Amino acid sequence: MLENGVDSMGKKYICLDIGGTKVLGAVFDEKDNIVLKVKKKTKAEKGIEVIEDKIISVVQELIDEAKIDKNELGAIGAGAPGVINEDIGEIIFAPNLPWRNYDIKSIIEKKFNVPFYLGNDANVGMIGEWKYGVAINKKNVIGIFAGTGIGGGLIINNRLFSGSRHLAGELGHMVLNTEGPYCNCGQRGCLEAYAGKVAITKEIWLQIDRGRKTLLKDLMEPDRSIVKSKMLKKALDDKDVVAHEIMNRVIYYLAAASGSLINIFNPDMLVLGGGVFESMGDYIMPLLKNYIESFTLPDVLKGTEIAQSVLGDDAILYGALSQIK
Amino acid sequence: MLENGVDSMGKKYICLDIGGTKVLGAVFDEKDNIVLKVKKKTKAEKGIEVIEDKIISVVQELIDEAKIDKNELGAIGAGAPGVINEDIGEIIFAPNLPWRNYDIKSIIEKKFNVPFYLGNDANVGMIGEWKYGVAINKKNVIGIFAGTGIGGGLIINNRLFSGSRHLAGELGHMVLNTEGPYCNCGQRGCLEAYAGKVAITKEIWLQIDRGRKTLLKDLMEPDRSIVKSKMLKKALDDKDVVAHEIMNRVIYYLAAASGSLINIFNPDMLVLGGGVFESMGDYIMPLLKNYIESFTLPDVLKGTEIAQSVLGDDAILYGALSQIK
Repeated sequence: MLENGVDSMGKKYICLDIGGTKVLGAVFDEKDNIVLKVKKKTKAEKGIEVIEDKIISVVQELIDEAKIDKNELGAIGAGAPGVINEDIGEIIFAPNLPWRNYDIKSIIEKKFNVPFYLGNDANVGMIGEWKYGVAINKKNVIGIFAGTGIGGGLIINNRLFSGSRHLAGELGHMVLNTEGPYCNCGQRGCLEAYAGKVAITKEIWLQIDRGRKTLLKDLMEPDRSIVKSKMLKKALDDKDVVAHEIMNRVIYYLAAASGSLINIFNPDMLVLGGGVFESMGDYIMPLLKNYIESFTLPDVLKGTEIAQSVLGDDAILYGALSQIK
Repeated sequence: MLENGVDSMGKKYICLDIGGTKVLGAVFDEKDNIVLKVKKKTKAEKGIEVIEDKIISVVQELIDEAKIDKNELGAIGAGAPGVINEDIGEIIFAPNLPWRNYDIKSIIEKKFNVPFYLGNDANVGMIGEWKYGVAINKKNVIGIFAGTGIGGGLIINNRLFSGSRHLAGELGHMVLNTEGPYCNCGQRGCLEAYAGKVAITKEIWLQIDRGRKTLLKDLMEPDRSIVKSKMLKKALDDKDVVAHEIMNRVIYYLAAASGSLINIFNPDMLVLGGGVFESMGDYIMPLLKNYIESFTLPDVLKGTEIAQSVLGDDAILYGALSQIK
């Protein structure tokens, strides 16, 4: 709570999902409803000032379009990829953004004159699902978020657990096969090397290049850029054999990681989210639940709910809201 | 604290490590020193009453031999394998002992008229290292304990984490290879299926049976019972090639599990303990630290201490002490 009950009456809040390819922003009213959304491409390759400008321009556009008065804005909150010290709002390191020890908090607070909160995107998304989504009131929750890469969030004893140095929850880099394919991180057989969209894209092109008949051939961008989850969804719906093969493999490895995490944490709930689940959750979830049984101790699995994110693309926005309101 | 400072003056405490093959008991004086130890074989195969009698006889022998007066005994504490509800001292399920929903707390408290605490052995051992051993004052600690099987203990935010249903920390059943060897638990490629002494024993006999030249051939029991860590240590010291091969494989998989755990928890410390480390820690630890680097994200590893248990066989006794004093 940045204000007490009386002062926060009628306040509006701006929340951001800052990514390697886009900045998504939303205005929340005092009843936690999203009243306006704006999305802009990040163009991370153009450098640090461009991203900073992009964030500021998204916030400014939201203020202007929603006609938010100077005293009406309560706070700004955001999730961004990488290692973030939530206590001081500093981005320590972001693999896909040109930031290191970047004090974005001071810049935003100076510019808009309201408090700014920043957390790691997977952690903030996990908080969103825990405060507003599928995991409300659960004591121990593990979140796996599958998109371009795979991130994780851990709720332990009713609070976010970010480890001893803000780096816990790197669930995409659990080793599922010690001699498995190399991951971008330099390890082998990581979950991300099987089930992230970078890995899925690589697998699709391998199959196209060896001449397999697949609808994905026409759906994929010729520049071999990362597959869109909606393309995969379309190919699955059209009973494309290659798409089904590839996604079943993805589900198998997601289940192996899920099983180990359940054996480690014995949680109340495992939440699966991110773009991959947003588009294909209906297909993935029943298969995943079956596979998980072969990767967990039955006594430990018993009582663990396995659920899909309900906030989807808005999880980070809601998570940021819960941190600033 | 079961008594306040004044009342506990001069009290003695009895702590037990209840295992599938032995009950180890110790008397602690008021300065936390072990003044007497007794060890008896469990003979678990003879049924529940025999184990109960064995526990009672170990406690009685400690009382008699240490000449503990009726009013001098402060409390009794213990660690035992399996799923234990520490809150009520009930053994819910123990894989290697014939106990199910066994209210051992009432039995012991009635017999000796003092409070009795019971926790899972790996958890209690972790607490021992955290309160009296190598991990004192660390906020987040992961413990891997390698013996016949492999157990784990988790200290998170300065307290033991046992999950939502007392079952967290099953670190021996993390999947390290989805198509790996079958584990006794029915999963494949578990840490325990590579690095527990059951797995090591199987590997040794495979090598002996195929005619490899190894000192272990003369050291192993002909009934193929589980290898003693001291035998392995002797073979390593004598530069036995097969022993080195087998232990390097064990260390490799311990490192894979350790790396994933560090990526998941970003802890202050990873503690390695149990009989395997008690006997061979000097050999294992330097190699393990090297291997771990290939299974962790460098940023996440940085600042994580990797340490061997210092209490060894006494970790569970000290952990139990910390829970009753």
